[in-house]
Amino acid sequence: MSFEVTKSCPYTRARSGVLTTPHGVVPTPVFVPVGTQATVKSLTPQELVSLGATIILGNTYHLYLRPGIEVIEKLGGLHRFMGWHGPLITDSGGYQVFSLAHLSRVSDAGVLFRSHIDGSEHFLTPELCVQFQQILGADIIMAFDECPPYTDDLNAVKEAMERTNRWAQRCQSSKQRSDQALYGIVQGGVFMELRRQSANSLTSLGFEGYALGGLSLGEPKEVTNAVVEETVGFLPEDKPRYLMGVGSPEDLFEGVSRGIDIFDSVLPTRIARNGGLFTHCGRKIIRNTRFRDWDGPIDEGCDCYTCRNFSAAYLHHLFKCEELLSYRLATIHNLRFVMRLMEEMRRHILDGSFPSFKDSFLEGYEPTDEETRFAQRQEWRKWRGTKFSERS
Amino acid sequence: MSFEVTKSCPYTRARSGVLTTPHGVVPTPVFVPVGTQATVKSLTPQELVSLGATIILGNTYHLYLRPGIEVIEKLGGLHRFMGWHGPLITDSGGYQVFSLAHLSRVSDAGVLFRSHIDGSEHFLTPELCVQFQQILGADIIMAFDECPPYTDDLNAVKEAMERTNRWAQRCQSSKQRSDQALYGIVQGGVFMELRRQSANSLTSLGFEGYALGGLSLGEPKEVTNAVVEETVGFLPEDKPRYLMGVGSPEDLFEGVSRGIDIFDSVLPTRIARNGGLFTHCGRKIIRNTRFRDWDGPIDEGCDCYTCRNFSAAYLHHLFKCEELLSYRLATIHNLRFVMRLMEEMRRHILDGSFPSFKDSFLEGYEPTDEETRFAQRQEWRKWRGTKFSERS
Repeated sequence: MSFEVTKSCPYTRARSGVLTTPHGVVPTPVFVPVGTQATVKSLTPQELVSLGATIILGNTYHLYLRPGIEVIEKLGGLHRFMGWHGPLITDSGGYQVFSLAHLSRVSDAGVLFRSHIDGSEHFLTPELCVQFQQILGADIIMAFDECPPYTDDLNAVKEAMERTNRWAQRCQSSKQRSDQALYGIVQGGVFMELRRQSANSLTSLGFEGYALGGLSLGEPKEVTNAVVEETVGFLPEDKPRYLMGVGSPEDLFEGVSRGIDIFDSVLPTRIARNGGLFTHCGRKIIRNTRFRDWDGPIDEGCDCYTCRNFSAAYLHHLFKCEELLSYRLATIHNLRFVMRLMEEMRRHILDGSFPSFKDSFLEGYEPTDEETRFAQRQEWRKWRGTKFSERS
Repeated sequence: MSFEVTKSCPYTRARSGVLTTPHGVVPTPVFVPVGTQATVKSLTPQELVSLGATIILGNTYHLYLRPGIEVIEKLGGLHRFMGWHGPLITDSGGYQVFSLAHLSRVSDAGVLFRSHIDGSEHFLTPELCVQFQQILGADIIMAFDECPPYTDDLNAVKEAMERTNRWAQRCQSSKQRSDQALYGIVQGGVFMELRRQSANSLTSLGFEGYALGGLSLGEPKEVTNAVVEETVGFLPEDKPRYLMGVGSPEDLFEGVSRGIDIFDSVLPTRIARNGGLFTHCGRKIIRNTRFRDWDGPIDEGCDCYTCRNFSAAYLHHLFKCEELLSYRLATIHNLRFVMRLMEEMRRHILDGSFPSFKDSFLEGYEPTDEETRFAQRQEWRKWRGTKFSERS
């Protein structure tokens, strides 16, 4: 397990590096596709490799509930269970327990919650969380954190941050496997002073990597960027920095510019399944009537399987018919778009031209406005509130 | 366009042959995966090729309603639209108009119906049906037929059969493209005399292939087999025979034994999406709890991507979570199972050992009983009755 910074951009904090894990090497900065329930929705491991994915993420909360940690243990660990033989991260489940489950009680001991699937009651502690992640066997495991919603209540955020730091220490103490890297998660909301305290506390414990949690939760983008910028300043240069929950093209640029090495987000895959497709001009809605007989690819110049083989009209048809292939072809496109963007960022960091690459990309790219982002988030929350069996 | 019988089984009516089309060569007997809406549900054309599919089927009724024949015309025909560059059949839509649409009026002129999608009214004639199929551009196109439900009302079946024969002649007269083969569809329900009349009428017109329609609609299996056996006797030796709607392993054997060359059915793909998986012992229900931690493939010895890479436990997990990948991995398995079965049948016909291969396969294979088949059919009808947008 090692991390090496190979090149730093002379104009921004962007840097390229190499993360070495027991299951392979990951060039950074890197985007990590999310395979919440031991599958990146609709895709095979084979396809992920061909899209350029070098590392993916699974979720302890979901896998604990289904199929159960003991099943994956019996099947030989998460890598073998899901047929992914490359580097793997498991998220600790902290974020999910606080956002997805029905919370019953939080104390220093741990979290009592009810499953979002069947309402069954469970108690999760930092120690159990590490134990589960050791059984799952990912290359990178995450400390159990308390992730409060976006709020301006400083005291609430401070309390959660301090508990997160105490839990981080307990995670560190209970970790036994030496072939897994444990990352701490910096909390503190949008309060710079809290971020500083959190970062200092974690770095004094010493983790193999540092994640920035509690961002991309609905706060304005300028706030996210400012917090990232400030927080990175409190973190060591020689350890990987992981910005959790960020995945839009414009946000990836902002994170990389500020010295982030690792990103994960469901955004590219989730919006794909809703028919939102990345192009070099911005996000397109494939159900729009103008694509009905559009005889070109979604994004001119894209090298993905979808764009090389199918017209936008065909994709439009598949979405209109709610055909299963639609989710897949759209997911392939969006993930490849992001993977290729990261490849290009790495290349431009290496040859010293990152700022001009960033400028030229963002000049042509119209980001989705806050209003649409907000509407999409609400749509998603509504959907999440439906019974699981009703979801598509 | 040609068809050649290369070898006949000395003990049964089974035969192997080669069907040559403008888009490639199809060894027979062959199973044709169904791509109703210009997609074999959940799979890419690339995957279909790797599964061993040599020919697939699209549906004129569905494609006429969505995306519309004019869209596919503008996009360069069905092959190009869906990215399938091999041999292709389009079904005429007769069966769908009578089973899926809301029927308004049938006369010799044609069929007035309401779309199952939005209730819009449409009028389809044999001439339009051929015109549409010429625009779609499949290698094999089907005559427009009236397909009544399974019934013992001889007069109703007779009337539909006679109309089907009159329509077949009109289809033949209106066909202009010489690079497409037009197949006639024998109707007549379970009445041997009607089947004979239908077959004689169609063979005197002379088609490039003959399909058996109106079977596999809920009649007992012995009846299907008897009708197939009798009807094949009325058809010429030198033309392909196509049994529509048959696709279970045991039924494929019965059809091949009786001289059928081509089969199509949604069964392997539809039951896959419901978690019903073929094995050499019979159909397994992957959601069954016994697969929860089953650390072997679905079907020992299967060479499909799913069985080579994933445990039954993983598939069980994906189905329990309603993950998109579940439909895909199950579809890959079932289609490959059927493709490989057909490959083996062809091999055994060629080397003269078809009857013993059939016996040894069926000895180990427990067919799904009539009761389960009936229940599954009812389940499907119920599902079909739901609003399209509610379907998974």
